Amino acid sequence: MTPGRFITLEGGEGVGKSTQARRLADALEARGLHVLVTREPGGSEGAEAIRALLMQGDIGRWSPHAEALLFAAARADHVDRYIRPAIGAGHWVICDRFLDSTRAYQGAQGIDDAAILALHAFGARGLLPDRTFLLELAAGEGRARAAGRNPAANDRFEGRDDRFHDAVANGFARIAASEPARLRTIDASGEPGQVTDRLIGALADLLP
Amino acid sequence: MTPGRFITLEGGEGVGKSTQARRLADALEARGLHVLVTREPGGSEGAEAIRALLMQGDIGRWSPHAEALLFAAARADHVDRYIRPAIGAGHWVICDRFLDSTRAYQGAQGIDDAAILALHAFGARGLLPDRTFLLELAAGEGRARAAGRNPAANDRFEGRDDRFHDAVANGFARIAASEPARLRTIDASGEPGQVTDRLIGALADLLP
Repeated sequence: MTPGRFITLEGGEGVGKSTQARRLADALEARGLHVLVTREPGGSEGAEAIRALLMQGDIGRWSPHAEALLFAAARADHVDRYIRPAIGAGHWVICDRFLDSTRAYQGAQGIDDAAILALHAFGARGLLPDRTFLLELAAGEGRARAAGRNPAANDRFEGRDDRFHDAVANGFARIAASEPARLRTIDASGEPGQVTDRLIGALADLLP
Repeated sequence: MTPGRFITLEGGEGVGKSTQARRLADALEARGLHVLVTREPGGSEGAEAIRALLMQGDIGRWSPHAEALLFAAARADHVDRYIRPAIGAGHWVICDRFLDSTRAYQGAQGIDDAAILALHAFGARGLLPDRTFLLELAAGEGRARAAGRNPAANDRFEGRDDRFHDAVANGFARIAASEPARLRTIDASGEPGQVTDRLIGALADLLP
């Protein structure tokens, strides 16, 4: 049995994470791998129940600290009940958002990065992806795409201002710079197929 | 303005915490204090939404780690949105269960006490009660009382076995022994009025 792998896609709103998660899964399946696609917050029964609390309501519904704890609880459930068993069974798991989103979004609200990592060490026993792709578009381009979606789909995070989203982008860039072996920054512009080719190219060292 | 105080009632199932919270509030109001009674998990709008996730479903719905994070998130919301503002306004706040219940119940499931205190330091900025009463009955007496309630009111915690509840009782006893200035163990046997008199007696140093 080839070893399972854990791949995450990160980045701001509208950069194509969900589309690329599906496309990357298809490309890996075509290479004979068994691939599962999941997303956060959510991805397991308990985590989806917590997701509803996180995504609905006013921007001020939760304090940044309560929010960070809820994300950590949802992630603990998702990792224990879904991700670890799947990897253990030899599957590749592709997750649309994971720990680095919490670091970037909660960090933009003043939560210390070390505290978020400590919550992850407690809840999910510190599971890190084998590879994380940070999808990047020119500032504003992703948000323009996100704004073109059904407005009813907007959630507590999409509703924030440009300054918040700039802080999130800076947070992602800092994480990518500090962990170059795990994170690869990927140009998300152009046709979806071109972006998928870039992802596959940046996975070459992990492919069987 | 006299300073607000924060009092918590702890102990196993059926020892009379809710009854004594109300009776103690009445006794303090009769002394001219303004008293608010609340409970955990819950006590604020966000925390009540998390309470529903914690109390409903199968015993195995959450891992002990996910459960500890959900309790910490609910407590962070309750402390930020209800308890701290009330104390700041000079009120006495009586809370039916608080941090020590998480320490005893999650501790009985193998979660390290230091980890629970770290989550509390993060979420609720480490708020501790001015006084905590540990209500104690002979082993089994409280559970017999709890079993006499409407069975539909049983929750994920009441449904566990005697060995679990013994471990919880040992956890409470350890906390009480380690923090004698904050925790007072109170004999919860006899008439409710006698128990309330014991509580008031053990608050004498805090009364104006």
